[in-house]
Amino acid sequence: MTDGETAFVPGHVTGFFSVHRHEDPARAGSRGAGLALSDGVTVEVTPAARTRIDLNGDTVGVEAVERVLESLDCSARVEAETSLPVGAGFGVSGGLALGTALAAAAATDRPRTVNELVTVAHCAEVEAGTGLGDVVAQARGGLAVRLDPGAPGHGTMDAIPATGRVEYVSVGDLPTGEVISGDTDALSAAGERALERLLDEPTPERFVDVSREFADEAGLATDRVESVIADVGGTGGTTGGTAGGTAAMAMLGETVFALGEGLSAAGYDPDVCEIHPAGAGLE
Amino acid sequence: MTDGETAFVPGHVTGFFSVHRHEDPARAGSRGAGLALSDGVTVEVTPAARTRIDLNGDTVGVEAVERVLESLDCSARVEAETSLPVGAGFGVSGGLALGTALAAAAATDRPRTVNELVTVAHCAEVEAGTGLGDVVAQARGGLAVRLDPGAPGHGTMDAIPATGRVEYVSVGDLPTGEVISGDTDALSAAGERALERLLDEPTPERFVDVSREFADEAGLATDRVESVIADVGGTGGTTGGTAGGTAAMAMLGETVFALGEGLSAAGYDPDVCEIHPAGAGLE
Repeated sequence: MTDGETAFVPGHVTGFFSVHRHEDPARAGSRGAGLALSDGVTVEVTPAARTRIDLNGDTVGVEAVERVLESLDCSARVEAETSLPVGAGFGVSGGLALGTALAAAAATDRPRTVNELVTVAHCAEVEAGTGLGDVVAQARGGLAVRLDPGAPGHGTMDAIPATGRVEYVSVGDLPTGEVISGDTDALSAAGERALERLLDEPTPERFVDVSREFADEAGLATDRVESVIADVGGTGGTTGGTAGGTAAMAMLGETVFALGEGLSAAGYDPDVCEIHPAGAGLE
Repeated sequence: MTDGETAFVPGHVTGFFSVHRHEDPARAGSRGAGLALSDGVTVEVTPAARTRIDLNGDTVGVEAVERVLESLDCSARVEAETSLPVGAGFGVSGGLALGTALAAAAATDRPRTVNELVTVAHCAEVEAGTGLGDVVAQARGGLAVRLDPGAPGHGTMDAIPATGRVEYVSVGDLPTGEVISGDTDALSAAGERALERLLDEPTPERFVDVSREFADEAGLATDRVESVIADVGGTGGTTGGTAGGTAAMAMLGETVFALGEGLSAAGYDPDVCEIHPAGAGLE
């Protein structure tokens, strides 16, 4: 038994996605794209006789984290901190699962490769029903594109060269589990169209545009989200805009994100971070 | 035509490798493992009527860079800066190729995905005969493991969780082209054994150990390199050592690298950097 180890996992806002179910959780997942954020989740894991999970100082139950520890055959004290809103589309549950996997493997001197640990966290998140694509995107960093669903060895990833400021405003949460376990045919069809359009022009601006269209086509945008997006002025679907820029909705949360200064230029007081270039890692 | 764009590519020291030739350069490459370094190559690309490449202020010819620009159908002024020694096993040629690809695509408003740009740079480097695996590792960051050779879509990558200080001392250069175009059967057999042993225990310490053994088995370590490695005290093949640590040789250069403070503890005055967690990207 060793001392605690700490991992950092970037937050992740998915802009659009399609659902791909499979009885093997390593092959289940989503296609789509999203932004890794410099605002993320820090997870310290210390081996302990009984598992206990604290998030921002409160003891919580997080099924994906419990499943990760079971997969790694250990019990531990898990102490996580994040400035991100929980349940609002920032991949906090995926971050907790992946950060726990990375830190637990280091803290228990049972080394695994990154792909193995990402697989453990991805499967835990899929089986808990709390996410489909955050973990693999958080393991990669940047503006990650999920070309094929699933954990490493099954899923395939690409990315779009991207750097710079991200703004976000969160006005409420949406239940990921209810959406991804329900009828997702129309949503997935919209997600597949969005992916095709993004790969036609792989730029950050196109990513925001197709994400905004996806939220509309999939019927996921609430009135409050639509109102914020309209204020940012992105409804024209322009790419490469300057003043104001464009905004879209984070999947799945009542959250609007924008590249550059889109939200602050529209008079909002957003949280501000950067696109995080690296994937999750030990601190 | 737009203004210049700038990319940063981490340096990369390969610890061991096996050679995999293929008539399709996207399928050619190496298996092996190496460290991405926070000391790297910064490349600014500005579209221009005639291509000109400057490295640290000197105009140079770099076939891999010229091939990248041809693939992207553009001519440009390429201004690169690096603190790394050239031709000493730090992936400077791969960094120039990959940095040029990323920055040129951004500067010419002809967007490509990261996988596409990595493929362009990898193929240029293979065809120029100056490298086999640096580009894909530099695109990933961290302690990258090349499980299968080739560009994205063909090669597969993993990584070993790793962070922290890297020291290096370079005493000379080795001609990459001569080694990788010669008889590589014994070298590749040693590289395959090293990869198997690393995956048995995927830790940074094991990486250094199997790399040191590889240099010995492949007959690549010069007397000067062997002398430095012996001074660091890694000849016992221990893992997880504390004082001094262990060292190995960078492929392909007359360069010794160590994790932690191995070289400085042995009385050398090494260059010092960190494992770079992120892959290459726009600045």
